[in-house]
Amino acid sequence: MKQSGLLTKTRKEVSQQEASVNAQLLERAGYVNKLMAGVYSYLPLGLRVLHKIEHIVREEMNSLGAQEILMPALQPRDSWDVTGRWNTVDVLYTLKAHERDLCLGPTHEEIVTPLVGGYIASYKDLPRAVYQIQTKFRNEARPKSGLLRGREFRMKDLYSFHAQEKDLDEYYEKVTATYLRIFERCGLGALTYLTYASGGIFSKYSHEFQTITPFGEDTIFICEPCKLAINQEILQDQPTCPGCKTDQLVEQKAIEVGNIFKLMYRFSHPFSLTYSDDQNVSRDIPMGCYGLGTSRLMGAIVEVLHDERGIMWPREVAPFNVHLLSLSKKPEISAQAHELYVRLQHAGIEVLYDDRECSAGEKFADADLIGIPLRLVFSDKTVAQDSVEVKMRGAQDANLVSIETLMEFLCQQGL
Amino acid sequence: MKQSGLLTKTRKEVSQQEASVNAQLLERAGYVNKLMAGVYSYLPLGLRVLHKIEHIVREEMNSLGAQEILMPALQPRDSWDVTGRWNTVDVLYTLKAHERDLCLGPTHEEIVTPLVGGYIASYKDLPRAVYQIQTKFRNEARPKSGLLRGREFRMKDLYSFHAQEKDLDEYYEKVTATYLRIFERCGLGALTYLTYASGGIFSKYSHEFQTITPFGEDTIFICEPCKLAINQEILQDQPTCPGCKTDQLVEQKAIEVGNIFKLMYRFSHPFSLTYSDDQNVSRDIPMGCYGLGTSRLMGAIVEVLHDERGIMWPREVAPFNVHLLSLSKKPEISAQAHELYVRLQHAGIEVLYDDRECSAGEKFADADLIGIPLRLVFSDKTVAQDSVEVKMRGAQDANLVSIETLMEFLCQQGL
Repeated sequence: MKQSGLLTKTRKEVSQQEASVNAQLLERAGYVNKLMAGVYSYLPLGLRVLHKIEHIVREEMNSLGAQEILMPALQPRDSWDVTGRWNTVDVLYTLKAHERDLCLGPTHEEIVTPLVGGYIASYKDLPRAVYQIQTKFRNEARPKSGLLRGREFRMKDLYSFHAQEKDLDEYYEKVTATYLRIFERCGLGALTYLTYASGGIFSKYSHEFQTITPFGEDTIFICEPCKLAINQEILQDQPTCPGCKTDQLVEQKAIEVGNIFKLMYRFSHPFSLTYSDDQNVSRDIPMGCYGLGTSRLMGAIVEVLHDERGIMWPREVAPFNVHLLSLSKKPEISAQAHELYVRLQHAGIEVLYDDRECSAGEKFADADLIGIPLRLVFSDKTVAQDSVEVKMRGAQDANLVSIETLMEFLCQQGL
Repeated sequence: MKQSGLLTKTRKEVSQQEASVNAQLLERAGYVNKLMAGVYSYLPLGLRVLHKIEHIVREEMNSLGAQEILMPALQPRDSWDVTGRWNTVDVLYTLKAHERDLCLGPTHEEIVTPLVGGYIASYKDLPRAVYQIQTKFRNEARPKSGLLRGREFRMKDLYSFHAQEKDLDEYYEKVTATYLRIFERCGLGALTYLTYASGGIFSKYSHEFQTITPFGEDTIFICEPCKLAINQEILQDQPTCPGCKTDQLVEQKAIEVGNIFKLMYRFSHPFSLTYSDDQNVSRDIPMGCYGLGTSRLMGAIVEVLHDERGIMWPREVAPFNVHLLSLSKKPEISAQAHELYVRLQHAGIEVLYDDRECSAGEKFADADLIGIPLRLVFSDKTVAQDSVEVKMRGAQDANLVSIETLMEFLCQQGL
């Protein structure tokens, strides 16, 4: 895409109310626009990133055999009265319409349990797993931290239904491995820890995925060899590594990027969800739920992967593969840059092409702020050497690559 | 996908409250599930159709040079007070949170106008067009007609911003052509008419796209040679075809599947949206808006394309390309059917594979109800002739195609 036609422009500054690094950088670079506290619009560059994250999540959910559905945001109070959560979930947005109490879904256990239950009769209908990628609403008292804690945000929620607890346990392990693969693909693998956290009525622990960063909201205690951590909230009950049992844990600040939970019978009981086993005996259905905020993950990536000049997107979630900067004022050289842009596109490479009439300094600064992984510079100087200047975002040095071998070079980079 | 693992099962009957054909068929076949009046969950088959429709819409919007964004559902009253619509739009869902009046977006002029305005300074920043595909909310008094008129529904809304009215006029023509292509790709081309409807303060007419069907909510008057129509509401002012001027118009019932509108200055004025022209003179910005309900379109397709046995999906929006029915009770023949299923998938063909243990009659009835365009039957009888039985949904007769030439046959069918 030509940058001259891009809806957004970068900004030197945004409101000081945006204290968090992710909101500052994402707003300045034109990825998101704040409508009100905790509520953002995703602009062209931002929606590209969000879609790429959600594409990864969708691929990985499908690989678990989960089926994608889409449930409503508007939910009736009746459903929430069944579980008693209408009065206990303090972040519910509620409204009244046509004499009926409604809420905006902050999560979907109350909807998915009877919905899936309607299609389960016997053991032959189990296991089942469904997920959705959807907009959720939480009336947070003080939304801060940009995309990390929004009032309206994007989330993937997966729910699983099993004939036996053993089957839930095995599925839960598979989901754990899948989550780690998602964070790996999103560039947070090395910094993300499977973390033990508090459970509920039916489970001793739930598990979080925590990505360490100096400005994280949470405090966790890490066992580096086991790649496991303990959330501060349960440290007193569980002061040692659940893997190797060492008590030599390292305190770190972290951001929660995912949360998985064995719900067991917490929701299947109130909704009377049962199945008939092969002896025709009625049995309870243990459930699991597995959340992952896709917009929160976008914020976490920026929080962790940036420098003083801007964002440093990991390859698989970057809005474009390549940022091509044309710096020449000579029409014949600009034409050559445009030709290269077309050639890259034909090769299936996603290119943001900075064809704007502005200074080289401005283009370099914008490229660093926007943070596309690979920068190509086409200028009078590089053309004199039949070359393009290539620089990885975050690398110190740039290199010249001859125009002739550029495609081969990009191919070697995995593009 | 194997049908034995599909979340949903078909149902013989659904609530009689669902009077509309689309809701009856979509619920019975397992495409959607009603949570409350006007609010539906999209189940695995239904979400596949919705995604295919939205994929077509996205491709066509991108071909118009429009940039995709995603705006919030939660909107502050302040924005609506600027245009005076807080008290005049009667379908607004409103709520109060943290002492602030909010609404759930039924449309996004109040959000997109200042948002895009923030990136427009001079004539060089025009034209711009942005769109989103998003969940919308309308507090309809009496939601009926299934997916045709929901309280929570999916919609694509495109907004364009221009330096001159002439440029808006040209873009409006391009969008009109694009809309007709979308309906063509969704199988409604022959039955869909560009229809003149009432305008607003700044425009004499708006335009609707109306698909004729006996149970449509609207009444239109058609000029068949011009493929144009007049909505009843403006018939008195415009009793002749806007093309050939004939007054020989044919009355028909129809469903509105799209609506486009020259907003002109209706929203740019209250939000003080202007640009500097090449003489540095401040100029007003005329706008266009272009709506298309993607879930409504799904309902309209079913309303128009069905028979007494079920849905008849057009190819490009069908949940799967092929429905493969395995009817044999012999393990070695079932194994062959499974082999064929795998082979079709490897060829990139989307297959629903009915591997369930149930009667042939049940499988045939479900296939007709679900409505995948091409049905393949693999049974003892067909295997005895080294063949597969092939039948198009809606065709009277089935044909035998030899297993050897099946791939070639499917290729000829454009799969």
